[in-house]
Amino acid sequence: MSDTINFNSKFKLFSEFWSPRVIAEMNNYQFKLVKIKGEFIWHNHEDTDEVFIVIKGTMGIEFKDRKIELNEGEMIVVKKNIDHKPFAKNECQVLLVEPKGTINTGNAGGELTSENNIWI
Amino acid sequence: MSDTINFNSKFKLFSEFWSPRVIAEMNNYQFKLVKIKGEFIWHNHEDTDEVFIVIKGTMGIEFKDRKIELNEGEMIVVKKNIDHKPFAKNECQVLLVEPKGTINTGNAGGELTSENNIWI
Repeated sequence: MSDTINFNSKFKLFSEFWSPRVIAEMNNYQFKLVKIKGEFIWHNHEDTDEVFIVIKGTMGIEFKDRKIELNEGEMIVVKKNIDHKPFAKNECQVLLVEPKGTINTGNAGGELTSENNIWI
Repeated sequence: MSDTINFNSKFKLFSEFWSPRVIAEMNNYQFKLVKIKGEFIWHNHEDTDEVFIVIKGTMGIEFKDRKIELNEGEMIVVKKNIDHKPFAKNECQVLLVEPKGTINTGNAGGELTSENNIWI
């Protein structure tokens, strides 16, 4: 049986940006916390949709045809195969929901690719 | 392409308790908002885990061997086949994540069974 998970307590356990930490598993999906600041890279996920929920702060996502802003208490589903580039002017704390094994840089790879499946 | 979804704005669109409303779909999973107050019924979900995230207020879940309290900014994964009974003394606003088609009363049925797949 899993225990209750407090987002703020978990966010205190790490400081690295763009490095998702797993906090829970539901079937074959994972809930991950990530701190973001600055600009990520363009990428997409070929096999899955991906959910962003902002827990604290403000972030943006650039798509090929528009930019969106995502504030605390808001979420978005980024559909599979859609190119996107997350960014945040100031630190933003985000909850991600995606299938186990999803890589943060998707199809793009590169130096911002984070080790996967790190639990906190 | 889905748009940004604001939890508070969506919660203003309905008032019924124990009647989940779908706000987003990620692959074959749905994100649902539900307002709860009072006691639900004992039930389990035979085919799936289920996630509760408290957006506003405080709720509890009774299990056969313990009770937990879940506050704003906290989540829990209720594993499949685990009997549970959600409750809330005062109105609590909750985000559920579960596979499309999941019925709120699970294996138990009864008069609290809500119509499924109502989008707001």
